[in-house]
Amino acid sequence: MPDRPLHVAIAGATGAVGEEILQCLDERDFPVAKLTLLASARSAGKTIPFRGEDIVVEELTHDSFESVDVALFSAGGGISKEFGPSAAKAGATVVDNSSAFRMDDDVPLIVPEINPEAAKNATRGIIANPNCTTIITLMALAPLHRQFGLKSIIASSYQAVSGSGAKGIAELEAQVDAIVKGEPVVQEIYPNQIAFNCIPQVDVAGENGYTKEEMKMQNEGRKILDLPSLLASVTCVRVPIYRSHSISISADFETPPTVDAARAAIDAFPGVGVMDDREAGKFPTPLDATNGDDCFVGRIRKDLVFPGGLSLWVVGDQVRKGAALNAVQIAELL
Amino acid sequence: MPDRPLHVAIAGATGAVGEEILQCLDERDFPVAKLTLLASARSAGKTIPFRGEDIVVEELTHDSFESVDVALFSAGGGISKEFGPSAAKAGATVVDNSSAFRMDDDVPLIVPEINPEAAKNATRGIIANPNCTTIITLMALAPLHRQFGLKSIIASSYQAVSGSGAKGIAELEAQVDAIVKGEPVVQEIYPNQIAFNCIPQVDVAGENGYTKEEMKMQNEGRKILDLPSLLASVTCVRVPIYRSHSISISADFETPPTVDAARAAIDAFPGVGVMDDREAGKFPTPLDATNGDDCFVGRIRKDLVFPGGLSLWVVGDQVRKGAALNAVQIAELL
Repeated sequence: MPDRPLHVAIAGATGAVGEEILQCLDERDFPVAKLTLLASARSAGKTIPFRGEDIVVEELTHDSFESVDVALFSAGGGISKEFGPSAAKAGATVVDNSSAFRMDDDVPLIVPEINPEAAKNATRGIIANPNCTTIITLMALAPLHRQFGLKSIIASSYQAVSGSGAKGIAELEAQVDAIVKGEPVVQEIYPNQIAFNCIPQVDVAGENGYTKEEMKMQNEGRKILDLPSLLASVTCVRVPIYRSHSISISADFETPPTVDAARAAIDAFPGVGVMDDREAGKFPTPLDATNGDDCFVGRIRKDLVFPGGLSLWVVGDQVRKGAALNAVQIAELL
Repeated sequence: MPDRPLHVAIAGATGAVGEEILQCLDERDFPVAKLTLLASARSAGKTIPFRGEDIVVEELTHDSFESVDVALFSAGGGISKEFGPSAAKAGATVVDNSSAFRMDDDVPLIVPEINPEAAKNATRGIIANPNCTTIITLMALAPLHRQFGLKSIIASSYQAVSGSGAKGIAELEAQVDAIVKGEPVVQEIYPNQIAFNCIPQVDVAGENGYTKEEMKMQNEGRKILDLPSLLASVTCVRVPIYRSHSISISADFETPPTVDAARAAIDAFPGVGVMDDREAGKFPTPLDATNGDDCFVGRIRKDLVFPGGLSLWVVGDQVRKGAALNAVQIAELL
């Protein structure tokens, strides 16, 4: 935790992640001396309550960051690129939720349970928050990596519509409502109907056919774990659920872990729990993670293809640990 | 196609797969001389229309199979075990949808596009229909195996509730309805809420932690492809969709295929199509396969972990190609 109360700014305060950041700051008793809420001109003038005060949302400008200690950005990559450097120049440490700076060499990419020490390398005044699916996957794999040496990941995701923001939630709700009433389904933001369907594409495909979202696991995973040799082959799929991402993982290791040793390693790690009762058939589902801080891991088995590998399943609330909570935890490192 | 009209019996005629078998027989102009519909005493006496005739459902007994040429069983493993041998003894060829006989050495396990020649080995008068998830996965992989030599499969499934029969459909419908109305959710057949949730468990777990459903890919895959060395590490997940299963696959091969060669091989294979337009973002979803005969494959990429491998996504209607259609296609081989 910071040793003195800080002036905190939130850019994108009226968005879903912005709202969640406010909740995390409050729940975690983050020492806030002053709170500046920033958003587009459209949202300026709204008031948002925080710790008994109604705070007026201001329009985000290049001059918004005077005396700000920490600026939490969650308004998309374009806004981060435009206003993040101004915030850093004004003396704030920027914690950025977008992908704008993640792969820059002079910007640390941090999951506080995994690589908090990287915060000291924020020479540019910017720290990046990793991709949500990558964070949740690594919360399961980092404790195993420390003991057994991670080599490669094959993963398939089950991603909630809230990953697309409020629009994604509205589209699933509207489509479900139409189907229940027997009315025609309207499609706006997803390339296919999402209600009662799975869409095997999150973000756009790059030259090798993998989407940007899929490549983040390898690119960001290498940086977070400081493991340039990591290989990750990922398929990201949108499923008709509202909140929390799940990832089915086969992971190969240098030293073959036993299932018991894997369970013990995960259980001892902060921020992640084991929920893996084969006899009772009790395994983690997205609803178990929703609105909570912890990720949960289950279905831990010896992989049948990787000789030194494990097969496992992890769930996590991608709005919290995948975004808002992780950002606030980064701010706590300062 | 059989060269003369056959006396066809359906055991489990009133179930979801039984109904679909009737539809497939009709659509495919299967030469039916006589149709005997069999079910439990509870359903006996109902009438079901077929080709303009109302056929009365009879109670399934050991004496139900006199003069029957083909008996299509789809009433669960217990019924198959009890009555299948009686049907075979009466001279019928049994096509069994359950898992009761699949791994028996003297029972061929057939996907007609893949190993039709195995039908001649039905020395016991029984042919088994494989597991639905295995059939759909192999429809994508068999054409690749022929050219490139399949070595191993890592797969995660996205399975529809109709895989649990009418009860599964009813549970999802009732839970969605309750949530839309703000009423409490009732759970009956699944271990967790399935509406707007994913359950990482289909069937019960065995000693190695894999469920029976998951082990079928390796066990049945080895038999269907005549490939005893095949390794398959599978995670089966129930998702809140009504119909058609999807499988996200990483597969490793003896000879590394190019993406173009893989597309061409799949496209040339009967019963499966390529839907893989990266630029337009057009990939197969469960809704694309629903109520159709063909499986569809997309997201075909060089795998980033397996040096000679591919990553891909396949969808198929598990009630049709995964069960009823495949059974009728087996009957067509006789």
